[in-house]
Amino acid sequence: MSEVMMDRMSWVDYRSRIEQGNAVVFLPCGSLEQHGPHLPLGVDAMLSTAVAREVAVRVGGIVAPALSYGYKSQPRCGGGQHFPGTTSLDGDHLSQVVRDVIRELARHGVTQVVLVDGHYENQWFLIEGIDLALRDLGVDHAMRIMRTEYWDFCTEEVLGEVFPDGFPGFALEHAAVIETSLMLHFHPELVWMDKIPDVAPVEFPPHDMYPPHTHWVPTSGVLSSARGASAEKGALIVDAVCAGFADAVRREFGG
Amino acid sequence: MSEVMMDRMSWVDYRSRIEQGNAVVFLPCGSLEQHGPHLPLGVDAMLSTAVAREVAVRVGGIVAPALSYGYKSQPRCGGGQHFPGTTSLDGDHLSQVVRDVIRELARHGVTQVVLVDGHYENQWFLIEGIDLALRDLGVDHAMRIMRTEYWDFCTEEVLGEVFPDGFPGFALEHAAVIETSLMLHFHPELVWMDKIPDVAPVEFPPHDMYPPHTHWVPTSGVLSSARGASAEKGALIVDAVCAGFADAVRREFGG
Amino acid sequence: MSEVMMDRMSWVDYRSRIEQGNAVVFLPCGSLEQHGPHLPLGVDAMLSTAVAREVAVRVGGIVAPALSYGYKSQPRCGGGQHFPGTTSLDGDHLSQVVRDVIRELARHGVTQVVLVDGHYENQWFLIEGIDLALRDLGVDHAMRIMRTEYWDFCTEEVLGEVFPDGFPGFALEHAAVIETSLMLHFHPELVWMDKIPDVAPVEFPPHDMYPPHTHWVPTSGVLSSARGASAEKGALIVDAVCAGFADAVRREFGG
Amino acid sequence: MSEVMMDRMSWVDYRSRIEQGNAVVFLPCGSLEQHGPHLPLGVDAMLSTAVAREVAVRVGGIVAPALSYGYKSQPRCGGGQHFPGTTSLDGDHLSQVVRDVIRELARHGVTQVVLVDGHYENQWFLIEGIDLALRDLGVDHAMRIMRTEYWDFCTEEVLGEVFPDGFPGFALEHAAVIETSLMLHFHPELVWMDKIPDVAPVEFPPHDMYPPHTHWVPTSGVLSSARGASAEKGALIVDAVCAGFADAVRREFGG
Amino acid sequence: MSEVMMDRMSWVDYRSRIEQGNAVVFLPCGSLEQHGPHLPLGVDAMLSTAVAREVAVRVGGIVAPALSYGYKSQPRCGGGQHFPGTTSLDGDHLSQVVRDVIRELARHGVTQVVLVDGHYENQWFLIEGIDLALRDLGVDHAMRIMRTEYWDFCTEEVLGEVFPDGFPGFALEHAAVIETSLMLHFHPELVWMDKIPDVAPVEFPPHDMYPPHTHWVPTSGVLSSARGASAEKGALIVDAVCAGFADAVRREFGG
Amino acid sequence: MSEVMMDRMSWVDYRSRIEQGNAVVFLPCGSLEQHGPHLPLGVDAMLSTAVAREVAVRVGGIVAPALSYGYKSQPRCGGGQHFPGTTSLDGDHLSQVVRDVIRELARHGVTQVVLVDGHYENQWFLIEGIDLALRDLGVDHAMRIMRTEYWDFCTEEVLGEVFPDGFPGFALEHAAVIETSLMLHFHPELVWMDKIPDVAPVEFPPHDMYPPHTHWVPTSGVLSSARGASAEKGALIVDAVCAGFADAVRREFGG
Repeated sequence: MSEVMMDRMSWVDYRSRIEQGNAVVFLPCGSLEQHGPHLPLGVDAMLSTAVAREVAVRVGGIVAPALSYGYKSQPRCGGGQHFPGTTSLDGDHLSQVVRDVIRELARHGVTQVVLVDGHYENQWFLIEGIDLALRDLGVDHAMRIMRTEYWDFCTEEVLGEVFPDGFPGFALEHAAVIETSLMLHFHPELVWMDKIPDVAPVEFPPHDMYPPHTHWVPTSGVLSSARGASAEKGALIVDAVCAGFADAVRREFGG
Repeated sequence: MSEVMMDRMSWVDYRSRIEQGNAVVFLPCGSLEQHGPHLPLGVDAMLSTAVAREVAVRVGGIVAPALSYGYKSQPRCGGGQHFPGTTSLDGDHLSQVVRDVIRELARHGVTQVVLVDGHYENQWFLIEGIDLALRDLGVDHAMRIMRTEYWDFCTEEVLGEVFPDGFPGFALEHAAVIETSLMLHFHPELVWMDKIPDVAPVEFPPHDMYPPHTHWVPTSGVLSSARGASAEKGALIVDAVCAGFADAVRREFGG
Repeated sequence: MSEVMMDRMSWVDYRSRIEQGNAVVFLPCGSLEQHGPHLPLGVDAMLSTAVAREVAVRVGGIVAPALSYGYKSQPRCGGGQHFPGTTSLDGDHLSQVVRDVIRELARHGVTQVVLVDGHYENQWFLIEGIDLALRDLGVDHAMRIMRTEYWDFCTEEVLGEVFPDGFPGFALEHAAVIETSLMLHFHPELVWMDKIPDVAPVEFPPHDMYPPHTHWVPTSGVLSSARGASAEKGALIVDAVCAGFADAVRREFGG
Repeated sequence: MSEVMMDRMSWVDYRSRIEQGNAVVFLPCGSLEQHGPHLPLGVDAMLSTAVAREVAVRVGGIVAPALSYGYKSQPRCGGGQHFPGTTSLDGDHLSQVVRDVIRELARHGVTQVVLVDGHYENQWFLIEGIDLALRDLGVDHAMRIMRTEYWDFCTEEVLGEVFPDGFPGFALEHAAVIETSLMLHFHPELVWMDKIPDVAPVEFPPHDMYPPHTHWVPTSGVLSSARGASAEKGALIVDAVCAGFADAVRREFGG
Repeated sequence: MSEVMMDRMSWVDYRSRIEQGNAVVFLPCGSLEQHGPHLPLGVDAMLSTAVAREVAVRVGGIVAPALSYGYKSQPRCGGGQHFPGTTSLDGDHLSQVVRDVIRELARHGVTQVVLVDGHYENQWFLIEGIDLALRDLGVDHAMRIMRTEYWDFCTEEVLGEVFPDGFPGFALEHAAVIETSLMLHFHPELVWMDKIPDVAPVEFPPHDMYPPHTHWVPTSGVLSSARGASAEKGALIVDAVCAGFADAVRREFGG
Repeated sequence: MSEVMMDRMSWVDYRSRIEQGNAVVFLPCGSLEQHGPHLPLGVDAMLSTAVAREVAVRVGGIVAPALSYGYKSQPRCGGGQHFPGTTSLDGDHLSQVVRDVIRELARHGVTQVVLVDGHYENQWFLIEGIDLALRDLGVDHAMRIMRTEYWDFCTEEVLGEVFPDGFPGFALEHAAVIETSLMLHFHPELVWMDKIPDVAPVEFPPHDMYPPHTHWVPTSGVLSSARGASAEKGALIVDAVCAGFADAVRREFGG
């Protein structure tokens, strides 16, 4: 199997891949953010990279190095900025990095880019970075960009199997069953099952407060329990997500 | 041996390390840049991370995720921006990311940070990012920051052994003997010795031209030959650099 | 009843309100965005202002002038930027305006601010503006900021009454039953019921494409039908939202 | 009479207006700024909108929502930033909003835009916003932009009638006879005649001081008395200004 | 007489001057802008520097190097950006340079700064630079800043002598009698009297157009004739301006 | 000899020079920075201007006004920011000024620009300014830009004569033999030979510290002694540098 990770290719090999035409470059977008006592800080970059890699293998794509730092963690989806270890960028700075990377890929001749977001808080700053890059390239440029939170490719069927008692929604799935299962699948040595906290799903009011009410967030940083996680569930999710994701890439970009 | 990579620690473990006091956090600063046909695009991030890791192990430090994208490649030190694969950031965007990361580390309680630069072109935008972060923190903040191009810790003795015919200077050491030897030491599977180009050391005039004269740069992207590289030389350089680097860290930060 | 709209108060009256202590200032955050053929472009500013006013009357607050321009419309929640009339700001510019307004309110002595978002796409740039403003003010400043999309205060009960056949979710509620009902309640002269398009709820795939696939969006710009809208439903929603909103303000800010 | 306010049109109606060709879009540029104890904080947005509306009616134009927040108030023309209620933007942020709005109007197909400034301090940041937008659009774009402080269309004759004892100059006309008369004409319910302060025209030295000498400014915030204001004078001024303004628009843009 | 030009002092001498207390640092703010066929492009930097120097001599001040590039030339006061040679900065960039210089002077211990503007178009971007610098320094900082267009210190009496037929106003005094007389006084070798164009005072309408109507501006770039200029008038103006300016500096800053 | 300084030409004369074709415009890039007790703060602007002027005379070029303020002084090459008098810009602000000036020169019809850097710390921010300007101009623009630190044109032969005991390297040549000799050649009245400090060449470790260790830098601010400086050496260096520089300009730009 040929290399899919861009940082592990020589520029000559990379050029060949681009010159063959139809290359799709995946940009994983992660964060450095608390993920409870049982998962490491780098989960979002690791998982978005792992998913990007799986999909790239299926569609013959290339995976650029992940953005390791993401937008500021919010209490209702990532626990908030008050946790030590969470290391975040200002929104505009994240957007500008995305803008630069896309513009550079365009210079290489790439016209098909996929942003694989693994950190919910990144979403709008990725959108803005894409929009600014497309403005730079001009309305007639061939560049087309796909963007997604990778978990959205999970099917209802799989969610039903993973959450036999009902799916609490992606909002609380921070360091919970899905991410923990995926880490058990991809990086089992970085999951400390004995440290999973016992936590009832957090309920947030319909408003945010700034500076955040830290008492709204469990001291563990986990928003709903990861107790139900398993490597098997991880494999199930990966299969569903990557199949759907690869299909969508093929549909959008041909090949 | 305990974990040194920050993205592989849980936030709880990271907090413990910070609370013990005297923690030193290393930030490797790389690039995605052509390194000839015999080395991968990610060399600078890989080597700055590897060196940071070695030094962190010696001084009990922590290594944050590398900045995988760096400042624009220049013909005289990195070959230039015209190579496919080279993927660079605007200077201010790089500085702002550095500023954000330092400010976040300060929020965690970290007061000792080391920027380990593995990409020559990054230097001044790292300096600016540091200056802006220190301005944000205020003149009375305890934060102290060390910054270096890691190869500057190499001793004259080792340079003499590595270059028996004389050291051509760091300026041309892009994808040449030092970086290739280090990659043979740290990531031998990512060095393709049979692809090393035969190139006489490039001589540049005392001025730059923009848009760059691409004919000033060998088509391989290599500025002087890597033929003399070996894993043994890599080990020699690593030992010298890491010893000197660790000493400097201890001298500056105690411990 | 005394004036609640800040732009209709003299500075002397405004100062009195602030000096009495406990003043809460509401900042409605709108957009200029297509809302189908049956609603005007200014819906989001009008509704966020109207709701802010209702709540301000209940809690003795002050309503600052709305931000009339918002972040870029997205296909899946606002139809997208390709519609004539949709007039949007770059994300950073929106954040900076929010930052400036909050910093100025702080200079007046205000320490309780509520951002009332009426345009889903604004959310993260408002969050960033708040974060930047709080950084400017310093960690010891008394400023506390509430932020919400106003419709999130709608109760399950009311949603049940408004959508007897089941609530399709807020995602598709652009220019649909809720916004149309609210406009019928607050600005009936600006609703053209005979122009409501017949549209089945749009289904979006789990990814975005840029430049947007305009064929994913109905040519009317409406994502699900507004046929079920009525002034009565508008009144029902307003009552529920404003009651819940005012309670939350009182709980957070006292008074 | 057909609608002239853009935020009250549906996107379909707006599109028709643009497609008819020759549409002129007016952007009122206001502020939220103290205007003495007898006028409300929103005077500049209200008056620039009212004038824009009158002129738009005469020339068949469209009025976009006003910029409700403007540049920082200066002692010699607006009293200064030390008054509670005055809520201002950084200059660059104001320019960027103007840039964005113009670029969006160009996307709609608009090529004739009029910035109607109602706040003297805005002037140069509007100019910069226009220049940046035109740079974005490129030198060959058809966009043409008119910009004015609306009061400059007042004739010498009318000024003679309004100020029988001699016109003190626009510099001191902050919250004074002209603005008060215009408010009596357009929004009489927002003028509190009994609160007009007795103030001799302020004389400023030929230099500014920062931080401002607040003692240079009357505590009322009024720079010369509004005692001579009347609704009749307001009508007189409006007639002269709008006639001259509409003529200029027709001359520049045809129609 | 001791040196007043900062760039001609050693840092040791500069430090002595600052340590004596009460030092006033003047920052001349110029431009590179067409000044007709009879005056050089650098007039604004030359004259603001010359005036600053005269005043600094009188009050024992220090003159920092001029800002040689200013804000964009406008038709009604500087002829416009379409003239070759006119070389201008974006407004924000000018403001940021001013901000940086003031912050650096504050670091040196300077608390009294005078911005001497010689280019009308600079005014508001200087004001913004000052405001941003003062925000950086914090509300409790001792820094006080004076700002002026130097010609505003000219007395009515002198204007009467210089313009025996009536003063047309500063607006048209671009490359006209005042600037030409001042150049004849300070830099006679850079005035080419035989090239002074014959031009009636230009009359501008009450609005601006962008892109500028270049036909509104005489092809010479001169807005009213400089025929009446003389070195004697230059001396007269200098005496009046510098006397008034020095008095104001003494009044504001003591000494 | 005709005028070479742009700020001393009328716009009409400047236009003639540009219209003749092949004009080369030099932009000297200086700083305001301590240069020991024996040299003035403005050395870098003075010397880069003087060298630019000499070269411009030889090649028929034009010298734009120097950038008088540069990037932040670093201990190892300029002594550091802790010296009073050193007055520096943020890196991005310097880059933006360069970007603006180049874009304006392009508007004049200039396609050959030379940045003459006289302050080592400026280098990378000039490079970035050039890159941003070229991006603005578009890939098809004819603009070509040369950039250099002027001293790099000094020949080995001359260095041998100037440093009979061996050349310590440019790194320590701050306010040392080369700059002092050049000042003795160009501005002897601004060199105070009796104040030259006795200082052994400073040795810096392979890393930087921030905030800087001020004890690493001699209190005089001089990094190696200027004792060997003389006007004769200055003449020698000027001849060599300007000859090489002019040759390079002719080679790159023809003529």
